Amino acid sequence: LLFDLSVSQSSAARIDRLQRQAASGPDVICLGGGLPDPRFFPKRDLGDAFFRALHRPSDALQYGWPEGELELRDWVAARLRLMGADLDPEHVVITNGAQQAISLTTRALLSPGQTVGMMDESYPGAIEAFRSAGLQLVPWERSASAYYLMPAVGNPGGRRMAPDERAEILRRLEREGPLVIEDDAYAESTFVGRREMPLVVLAPERVIHVGTLSKVLCPGLRVGWIATRHPALARILAEKQQADLQAPSLTQRIVAEYLKGPRFDRHIARVRRGYERKAKALLQAVREALPEFRVTVPHGGFSLWLEHRGPHGLFDDLSLLRAAIRRGVSFDPGRTFRIRDSKQLALRLCYGSVPLDELERGAARLAEALEDVRGATSARLTLAPKGREAP
Amino acid sequence: LLFDLSVSQSSAARIDRLQRQAASGPDVICLGGGLPDPRFFPKRDLGDAFFRALHRPSDALQYGWPEGELELRDWVAARLRLMGADLDPEHVVITNGAQQAISLTTRALLSPGQTVGMMDESYPGAIEAFRSAGLQLVPWERSASAYYLMPAVGNPGGRRMAPDERAEILRRLEREGPLVIEDDAYAESTFVGRREMPLVVLAPERVIHVGTLSKVLCPGLRVGWIATRHPALARILAEKQQADLQAPSLTQRIVAEYLKGPRFDRHIARVRRGYERKAKALLQAVREALPEFRVTVPHGGFSLWLEHRGPHGLFDDLSLLRAAIRRGVSFDPGRTFRIRDSKQLALRLCYGSVPLDELERGAARLAEALEDVRGATSARLTLAPKGREAP
Repeated sequence: LLFDLSVSQSSAARIDRLQRQAASGPDVICLGGGLPDPRFFPKRDLGDAFFRALHRPSDALQYGWPEGELELRDWVAARLRLMGADLDPEHVVITNGAQQAISLTTRALLSPGQTVGMMDESYPGAIEAFRSAGLQLVPWERSASAYYLMPAVGNPGGRRMAPDERAEILRRLEREGPLVIEDDAYAESTFVGRREMPLVVLAPERVIHVGTLSKVLCPGLRVGWIATRHPALARILAEKQQADLQAPSLTQRIVAEYLKGPRFDRHIARVRRGYERKAKALLQAVREALPEFRVTVPHGGFSLWLEHRGPHGLFDDLSLLRAAIRRGVSFDPGRTFRIRDSKQLALRLCYGSVPLDELERGAARLAEALEDVRGATSARLTLAPKGREAP
Repeated sequence: LLFDLSVSQSSAARIDRLQRQAASGPDVICLGGGLPDPRFFPKRDLGDAFFRALHRPSDALQYGWPEGELELRDWVAARLRLMGADLDPEHVVITNGAQQAISLTTRALLSPGQTVGMMDESYPGAIEAFRSAGLQLVPWERSASAYYLMPAVGNPGGRRMAPDERAEILRRLEREGPLVIEDDAYAESTFVGRREMPLVVLAPERVIHVGTLSKVLCPGLRVGWIATRHPALARILAEKQQADLQAPSLTQRIVAEYLKGPRFDRHIARVRRGYERKAKALLQAVREALPEFRVTVPHGGFSLWLEHRGPHGLFDDLSLLRAAIRRGVSFDPGRTFRIRDSKQLALRLCYGSVPLDELERGAARLAEALEDVRGATSARLTLAPKGREAP
């Protein structure tokens, strides 16, 4: 088989090996991986917050309750109330990042054989969690038992749900009452304009809202959450307790201390500008160096989604990734984001952690790699008949 | 039904409510909950470690790999090698505490309907993880597909596996090759003498070794691990990635920095002496104030296991817990630790977080609560016939 575009275990393992190889190469520009920019992490403020957390009588080093620290749940609920949500701290469970929020919700609320409607390209961690739970992934346009959506800022590509898509989901929420998992992981990174109301504001008892500080603060703390009035929140909490008792008291207390006062919103404003500048630079570089790809214009997040204009099927994303690493650049193969097979070559390019002045060079190296693969492919196509003639 | 000794969801909810009530009562001596002593947490050293972690180039605030930080896995493997285990960092996965290690192992390696052999009383988090995975819990003396054991220091009661029990498990490992989950959560808290070799030393490919720093360092970091040469470690790692991507980089880096140098072993020596002193004080207080209970002599850990000598069935552990909280003391009801129903009243008393000089008062209050319940029960038994005579 020349092209196996489904993400089998072995292809996942190959991708993992390649990404690790790229990450350990000192001269590789990592446009893969989806990391935020460590230059934006507020080290000093988090250091101060750590010391306040350590010396408070409520012990940051002791066990806590499975639902998480009250102050932090209070902050999450208040922030969603600012956008109109009717939520209180008792509607919030703190998780180890958004991934755990998705995984706990899946275990607590979905059963094998049910359908989950999703965008054609979506977050691989959710795709894998749903698949391994025996769920059937379908394009979100079809009616489904549940939907997994990133309405504010999508991954990959940073796309916002279009007004008509949003209206359609709201119509289904009203008429069919499905479960909706609203993954707002990147919502706070929205570049411009007012963001739309989260879906949980409109249907708090049907929407499981997922949030995290991994994208705009830092991922190393693994602080995420679920916020909902869905009656099954108690089941989700029971799953959390069984999974790992609780999120770390220390990281929760650090974040709770950090979030006091106005510095978080100032920080977010800085971070948004920083990512927007990088998004524009990479977008321009891609348009110039890789004109044969269609590229999304992101509303936020860390990444662009590139789809090859065709012809399709000459080589696949893994061949290109291998060539790219040889040229000193990496990316995320499109197949990991897809809910169904496609021969259209696609890739995710992340500008998150790459310095602004390396983005253009990254795109140029990728163009070279593309030439390498194209050259090798046409050489193979040319040579193959000759090969057959040989004894 | 007067006595429902199985831990149903509703009884779990009642216990949870009572424990929260006890924890929020300012004058309640909490002999329940199983917390370590916050006076033993090395705050200053952890603060230093935090600053070293924050300012190292390997970013403690960034994403990491799902298996965890290499330095920390290196430390775990080296510590087990000191006891004779043939393990390297690639045989270690860092988890969010021991609970996640148990839960991931269950999901990766066990299937509904299989049997798990356990001690009659065991860690409730493991019991619940196994039950909700559809496993059948059987006394470890019976042959089973897998075993869950705490060979060094048991929970509840801090009991060490007896030499003949150990020999029997080793015999089965050799002849039948079952999976063994070795939960060594409390092993480092062993009070006296040399500890036995962990089972993973003897059968590294059949034993999933579970460890944590929650008991002797502090639980608020949630740093635990799995160490094994079992070929399914890759499946466990895949479960970890799907569950929450990775343990927090920050807490892992803090611990890795803290563990450099000899201070951890000095710390453990201090902590062991502290808990041993409290164990002896509570043991003596229980023997004096509550002579109608049989009590285990612990080899380590934070708790005693008390079983009533009988007659059984007059009142249950929840009635006693309610009366105890009114008297200003709490404990953990025995039912949550049992793998099968029993009418024998039992309780776990934790000396972990209670100050030394409050232990005697705690036992005295428990004795008062016992009198209250006994009085109420005999009053009810005496009054009941009269009640029936009334119109």
